[in-house]
Amino acid sequence: MQTGKGLLLKADPIAAVFRDEVKASLSRASRRPRLVGILATSSAPSKFYAEFTKKQCEDLGVEFILKKTGAADTGDLGEGEGVEEAIIEANEDENVDGIMVYYPIFGPQQDHYLQQVVSPYKDVEGLHFKFHYNLYHNIRFIEPQSLLSSSVPSAASAGVVESEDPPPGTAKSIIPCTPLAIVKCLEHVGVYNKILPYGDRAYGRTITVINRSEVVGRPLAALLANDGARVFSADIDSIQEYTKRPRVAGAADASARRYHPRHVVHPTAASLQECLALSDVVISAVPTAAYKVKTAWLKDGCVCVNVAADKNFESDVRDKASLYIPAVGKVTILMLLRNLLRLQQYKAVV
Amino acid sequence: MQTGKGLLLKADPIAAVFRDEVKASLSRASRRPRLVGILATSSAPSKFYAEFTKKQCEDLGVEFILKKTGAADTGDLGEGEGVEEAIIEANEDENVDGIMVYYPIFGPQQDHYLQQVVSPYKDVEGLHFKFHYNLYHNIRFIEPQSLLSSSVPSAASAGVVESEDPPPGTAKSIIPCTPLAIVKCLEHVGVYNKILPYGDRAYGRTITVINRSEVVGRPLAALLANDGARVFSADIDSIQEYTKRPRVAGAADASARRYHPRHVVHPTAASLQECLALSDVVISAVPTAAYKVKTAWLKDGCVCVNVAADKNFESDVRDKASLYIPAVGKVTILMLLRNLLRLQQYKAVV
Repeated sequence: MQTGKGLLLKADPIAAVFRDEVKASLSRASRRPRLVGILATSSAPSKFYAEFTKKQCEDLGVEFILKKTGAADTGDLGEGEGVEEAIIEANEDENVDGIMVYYPIFGPQQDHYLQQVVSPYKDVEGLHFKFHYNLYHNIRFIEPQSLLSSSVPSAASAGVVESEDPPPGTAKSIIPCTPLAIVKCLEHVGVYNKILPYGDRAYGRTITVINRSEVVGRPLAALLANDGARVFSADIDSIQEYTKRPRVAGAADASARRYHPRHVVHPTAASLQECLALSDVVISAVPTAAYKVKTAWLKDGCVCVNVAADKNFESDVRDKASLYIPAVGKVTILMLLRNLLRLQQYKAVV
Repeated sequence: MQTGKGLLLKADPIAAVFRDEVKASLSRASRRPRLVGILATSSAPSKFYAEFTKKQCEDLGVEFILKKTGAADTGDLGEGEGVEEAIIEANEDENVDGIMVYYPIFGPQQDHYLQQVVSPYKDVEGLHFKFHYNLYHNIRFIEPQSLLSSSVPSAASAGVVESEDPPPGTAKSIIPCTPLAIVKCLEHVGVYNKILPYGDRAYGRTITVINRSEVVGRPLAALLANDGARVFSADIDSIQEYTKRPRVAGAADASARRYHPRHVVHPTAASLQECLALSDVVISAVPTAAYKVKTAWLKDGCVCVNVAADKNFESDVRDKASLYIPAVGKVTILMLLRNLLRLQQYKAVV
């Protein structure tokens, strides 16, 4: 039995790898990209994040313009006032390469509306429906022109993953920043197994994701399951299992043993305690300070990742976890800048 | 002082007018339209509504096919399982003219995702982002081809309303069924003044809308304000004022007195009680049985419309209201069939 504490891994060394990659790409770019940040509320965390984005951009040589509107501006405007107009203006400005909006503003429903107003060609956060649709359908490579169309790609194009390199005429689809940052952290710490073929490198891992929002939890569960993991997606009122593998592993018919081109979702009768007992990895993103994953329920030697602003793990988490990543924000911002560079590629093709 | 009770107005006579209109349009149609209903949960109200749709369609001569999936189906599937696949199948089936999905399924966020999967050319409920965008921007007429594009129309095209008839090459945009049904009820009872020019017929009315969801409350507040009303939009945590008129009515400069091409939104310091005291019309759509609008707070002689399944008004509402409409569902279903016919027109143009 292991008696030592698990490793505390801050995101800095993971971020450093991507910082170098983004820097190298920027040095090859013909033009310094311009990112517009839109701050429309008086929320302190949003203001802090806006300043953080600005500093990161300046360090790396990306032009960052902060546009303040609504309660973030000086006038007597309300929370969020003018934000839609600011997005439309940035959409129509040819000199703007990327747009990020500091959410939450109005709450999930109205914010989801705003996320569709941002042009997919400038959507560095990857929150547009088109990108979510691709993610859920395991469509990894897209023809950038296809973003011009309101219709969704045929289901037949899902899950065709031959290699990590996009086929000619295509580029990688944009993936929402936060789920992508978490996947990159899991790659870094070896949860993804590079010996396995691309598109199936999380095979063999059981992962619990706590939170099923459209911004973090659901896309993350889908990404991990599309990469081969068995995922328990836990929300306040239900637990679901995301997997692309057949449920009856021992089926006699070979076709019944083939896995799906993308994840499928089933309800599960397992409790959170039962899911955690099976989980090699536990990721929690519950936006309330009161919520804590019980250390006693964790599997010995598991990997824990906290995504919430207020820590979702108890202070003794490393008594059980072999590895604990307390925050991923520093990786998230680099994923955003990576998306900005990818969107510039799209533009070159369209 | 009036001592008698206000009028109780059921939706039937309002629905009857539209039933005749839809019947006449169908008799002129070259082909019987086909509507697919997708039921993916075991929810009793959804099941009831599906049966209601079926009966209405059959009475009017619309072909209705109910597709059951997930927990609505016989197997051991979970709530909502297979619903996205069923939508995609109906999108791709050329013989399907309209798709309606019985929400709620997963909750507002994931349901909003599903609403974007439905092709806008088959979206009888009017829940696609493109239609919401047009509504919020007071874009009433569209070129049907524009729905093929993922980009949003220029803000410059907002609020150009010369007459009720679409200019050549355009058609009316689809409006979400429930807000549209409420507007039709208000037209029927004279809240809209036909003597005023089209696009401004609610001018002079003060209306409180209780609920600010993206499905009912916010689009309704926007529609009413775009039509000239002063609207208080009340939600659990804030009250906003929607209006297209300048806030300083007495401004010396004529241009400052001109109204906006579409509504603008401002926070207001008024309490719900203060808003109700000013309101000629009160519409409530709060999905909890416990919520009741206090009769004591209503303005004498106002018009009250309940949209919630559980009544949001107290039983003595007509002690104050001159007119009370307890339900609008029978009008809503006709708006849906009207949208189905409009979408057939789109197809003819594209």
